Amino acid sequence: MGFRTKAQVRFAHIDAAAIVFYPRYFEFLNGAVEDWFAAMGHDFHGLHVRRQLGVPTVSLQCDFQAPSELGDILDIAIEPRRIGGSSCAYDFRMSVDGQQRISGSGVLVCMDLAARKAVPWPDDMRSAMNAFLVVA
Amino acid sequence: MGFRTKAQVRFAHIDAAAIVFYPRYFEFLNGAVEDWFAAMGHDFHGLHVRRQLGVPTVSLQCDFQAPSELGDILDIAIEPRRIGGSSCAYDFRMSVDGQQRISGSGVLVCMDLAARKAVPWPDDMRSAMNAFLVVA
Amino acid sequence: MGFRTKAQVRFAHIDAAAIVFYPRYFEFLNGAVEDWFAAMGHDFHGLHVRRQLGVPTVSLQCDFQAPSELGDILDIAIEPRRIGGSSCAYDFRMSVDGQQRISGSGVLVCMDLAARKAVPWPDDMRSAMNAFLVVA
Amino acid sequence: MGFRTKAQVRFAHIDAAAIVFYPRYFEFLNGAVEDWFAAMGHDFHGLHVRRQLGVPTVSLQCDFQAPSELGDILDIAIEPRRIGGSSCAYDFRMSVDGQQRISGSGVLVCMDLAARKAVPWPDDMRSAMNAFLVVA
Repeated sequence: MGFRTKAQVRFAHIDAAAIVFYPRYFEFLNGAVEDWFAAMGHDFHGLHVRRQLGVPTVSLQCDFQAPSELGDILDIAIEPRRIGGSSCAYDFRMSVDGQQRISGSGVLVCMDLAARKAVPWPDDMRSAMNAFLVVA
Repeated sequence: MGFRTKAQVRFAHIDAAAIVFYPRYFEFLNGAVEDWFAAMGHDFHGLHVRRQLGVPTVSLQCDFQAPSELGDILDIAIEPRRIGGSSCAYDFRMSVDGQQRISGSGVLVCMDLAARKAVPWPDDMRSAMNAFLVVA
Repeated sequence: MGFRTKAQVRFAHIDAAAIVFYPRYFEFLNGAVEDWFAAMGHDFHGLHVRRQLGVPTVSLQCDFQAPSELGDILDIAIEPRRIGGSSCAYDFRMSVDGQQRISGSGVLVCMDLAARKAVPWPDDMRSAMNAFLVVA
Repeated sequence: MGFRTKAQVRFAHIDAAAIVFYPRYFEFLNGAVEDWFAAMGHDFHGLHVRRQLGVPTVSLQCDFQAPSELGDILDIAIEPRRIGGSSCAYDFRMSVDGQQRISGSGVLVCMDLAARKAVPWPDDMRSAMNAFLVVA
């Protein structure tokens, strides 16, 4: 099923060529993951502050198909593909009016912030994520 | 009357103390000015690309009253106080649930992007801005 | 006497008009304050992690005199003017080849990160800062 | 032979867990590519402004091996592997005191900024890049 959200390209995101500076796409991606976790009832504030859990990215790959401009509203899709013991592999795509701008995949892990090591997903988070799983 | 908009504090905006890193407030402020111009029918894409006009900030002063946290939704008020020949002096405030976080004032100028010098506000922009003027 | 450091304007800092996006100046300013504290023997890592102290900015005012471009090396001067019980008021200037780009002043406070409240400067920090004081 | 440069992790780059927020690594990567082009005599200012050429990233993949902290000095290696007609495939690694933090690969293309399309590398740039080529 996956998760969908939106983000607006602002003046702060564009470069001298008037297109999105590519590191900003990863801020959009991180924001989309934030929105997904919030939609699952696990907003990042509660996760980080109260539960002392983080979800750092351990790998990432992507292709940039077309540039994005100031004012574009990006449609962002997050499609979890595999929930491991303490990891989550997902595909993502960002597009504007159906034209794809960037697509790729990443892997998140569940990290104990105090110990700074990977820990198994808590059951409530695992079952929430499973509901969004996209099966090939 | 002024202009009001909102912005969400995301993981990308907070620092090691888990509060908004202060330069990010100026990204929020710039975004609010973007929203204001869009609301006046002068979105930044059209302004910068088609009309070749920018609205750089030439002065700024502010006080930080209280920290903002991940997940906060900032209520941002932009109150133009004086529209000059090619400038606009405004006050701004950001608050969350009525608690003020940062307040201050700034001055924008209308700049010809090719010539990189201040130019008089076009009539349509001046009259649009005048409608938002807050008189003391 | 004050403190002087440098920062390079990179592609990441400029906007669609090919000049520094103004919120980036505050990242440069924050970096200059970091360099100053490091020069005093109080690097931010030690300060934040080991001593659990932060130095948030509580007020700021500045004027932008001229735009900065990609590749510019900014000369940044931090001139502390008054060290209070838990605050430090300073002036700052950034220039390139003697041409001033931005100047202003700010106030830092010494904050206990756990309690999130202002605390008196520790004696070693106060005396280190006093050595940089610029008397009018 | 490859190209090597350094970057300092500053307060602006770290997140609430006090480690580098991963989109910031791509700002470091972009800065390293900037340094490489400058070392080849093609600084980004001249490239973008005078020659109207950009070098956008069209694909990227990486693994994050270990977190980086405030104050870390990243050793960044850029190793071009293949120079195509208008592209450059490279590997990169960032490490601190020999401990690898992130490694991966990317592809740049030479883009005509006005036309917004890929163009062949100018001869002077191609031969400069060839001198840095790392053969497997």
